[in-house]
Amino acid sequence: MATKLDPRALGEFGLIDALRRRARVARSAWSESIGDDAAVLRPRPNTELVLTADALVEDIHFRFATTDARSLGHKALAVNLSDLAAMGATPRGFLLSLALPPIALPERLEGFVSGLLATAKKYRCPLVGGDIVSSPVWMFSITAVGEVPRGKALLRRGARIGDRIMLSGDVGGSALGLQLLEASAAREPRARPFVRRHLRPTPRVEAGERLLRWGVATAVIDVSDGVVQDLGHIAQFAGSCAEIDIEDLPLPRGFRAACSRLGLEAHELALAGGEDFELLFTVGPNAPAARVFSKRLGCPISEIGVLRRGRGVVARRGGEPLRLSAGGFEHFKTLSLPSDK
Amino acid sequence: MATKLDPRALGEFGLIDALRRRARVARSAWSESIGDDAAVLRPRPNTELVLTADALVEDIHFRFATTDARSLGHKALAVNLSDLAAMGATPRGFLLSLALPPIALPERLEGFVSGLLATAKKYRCPLVGGDIVSSPVWMFSITAVGEVPRGKALLRRGARIGDRIMLSGDVGGSALGLQLLEASAAREPRARPFVRRHLRPTPRVEAGERLLRWGVATAVIDVSDGVVQDLGHIAQFAGSCAEIDIEDLPLPRGFRAACSRLGLEAHELALAGGEDFELLFTVGPNAPAARVFSKRLGCPISEIGVLRRGRGVVARRGGEPLRLSAGGFEHFKTLSLPSDK
Repeated sequence: MATKLDPRALGEFGLIDALRRRARVARSAWSESIGDDAAVLRPRPNTELVLTADALVEDIHFRFATTDARSLGHKALAVNLSDLAAMGATPRGFLLSLALPPIALPERLEGFVSGLLATAKKYRCPLVGGDIVSSPVWMFSITAVGEVPRGKALLRRGARIGDRIMLSGDVGGSALGLQLLEASAAREPRARPFVRRHLRPTPRVEAGERLLRWGVATAVIDVSDGVVQDLGHIAQFAGSCAEIDIEDLPLPRGFRAACSRLGLEAHELALAGGEDFELLFTVGPNAPAARVFSKRLGCPISEIGVLRRGRGVVARRGGEPLRLSAGGFEHFKTLSLPSDK
Repeated sequence: MATKLDPRALGEFGLIDALRRRARVARSAWSESIGDDAAVLRPRPNTELVLTADALVEDIHFRFATTDARSLGHKALAVNLSDLAAMGATPRGFLLSLALPPIALPERLEGFVSGLLATAKKYRCPLVGGDIVSSPVWMFSITAVGEVPRGKALLRRGARIGDRIMLSGDVGGSALGLQLLEASAAREPRARPFVRRHLRPTPRVEAGERLLRWGVATAVIDVSDGVVQDLGHIAQFAGSCAEIDIEDLPLPRGFRAACSRLGLEAHELALAGGEDFELLFTVGPNAPAARVFSKRLGCPISEIGVLRRGRGVVARRGGEPLRLSAGGFEHFKTLSLPSDK
């Protein structure tokens, strides 16, 4: 039924045709999509459009030794949906620039496209355009488009001293999953939930939309580079210090035990590990308790700290400040290059 | 004044900060841009948004041996502006996914960014967001956003049998420029205009906007893969055969002589060579003559053929059909791989 996605047999235009047939764009919002020079989106009245781009590169962001192609297709879109979620936006569609080696395996491309389009369908975010090119390594860049009511987008800036810090779900699981994959321990039953968390993250799209409608958040970001680093952006915009207590940090079930088996510091991994794709947000001092948020946003919400006078991010255990040896993932700075020291 | 753009000294966030400071987004259309999870665009009333993405990869689309970094920055945006022009859209802004080796030369990155932002300024199309990642080779994907009056976007489909085929400017120059670069003959004075055409193409943004306002075009595409291939898309949508006379094909001054010095078939290069970024469009049988178009669109326009019953693209010289050995550039199919035959 589906065309076999062989780059060399189909060529660029054959691949584009195959993707167009499978993308099945709903005509409501997009009057034109794949097949013209550009896609045409009709905005709804009184809305603004939210645009975000994220790129993933083979052997930098992922390795085929540790991910299956279908998960990769999912994740390529999910990381962008998470950025939309952090703005409170409703996904509308996305453009894909896909660079792949001419000798890319058809099964691999098929897996990638299946995973990508399944996630697109699930979040009602159709593929509407893009580009397919050849390249020495796999690389893809997705630009996702979302919609928010005019002037209502959730932003990183807006928090004030005294605001309380809230976090959806739990953190550290994705980083642990990556460690397990790299240690070739991914097939153990106890490892599976963490590995899945890393390979198939869930963007908090609905919680973000609900948070926007509620209008109670003063600043929002998604946890892609690690709690410390991402919270640092909110604190910086607020001209304040984000103080969190690691005893309040929500960890996945079995996380501490799995960390200790691998000789990892659980709290460091939870604070510095990236790609959890949870929502990290601040609310005023008089906002309701976390359990009220859990109910209204439809996912677990924990209160993890407060914004105080000062700068940066401070983690404490009880009253005592913690030393952190790692600060999240940043490109170029964290690459180990022979000439880097 | 400008920060030195050294990836390893600045890191990902330092680079993003440097780009934000230099991008200087006008606040009119974008309420948020670089620095949050996503950029926020407020559409004007009764408009639609046009989105296009194009990716360029080192050693596939360009080589640093034959292009300077500043031209490359220009071209990265220009190819996307050309897609907007083909829709008749007014550029509004763009997102950049930039993948570069950690050891990328700061001078090279500086040149790229300068060229990119100069072109952004010229076309009032600010950098509003994106991503910067490390990669084994340079690669960038740009998503450009334009605006059209509601329901008025110029499309590839819409032409009918009997429609006349029009072309802006001239074709073949870019392909010849590439040949000259590859033959290391780019420094000859006679070579310069062609080389410049290849390295610093001019998107027909204003002509596209004027064509949209005029409302006379039945179908439009930009010449990125070569006249034959791009005209083929219009003919296919029209269920017709595009017949062009190569005597009517507008060639750059000195083109035939330069081709013959290199032993190239001038008409083949003009028909099959890509990256001219001219507008190729159709108009009804009763539309005005080409010189009227030249005046109203503000650039030279030539009439090069007509849509007839049939399929595909036929080139004639006077009455006689021509054989064409090449059909434009298509990824994967045109790569010479050892196992490709």
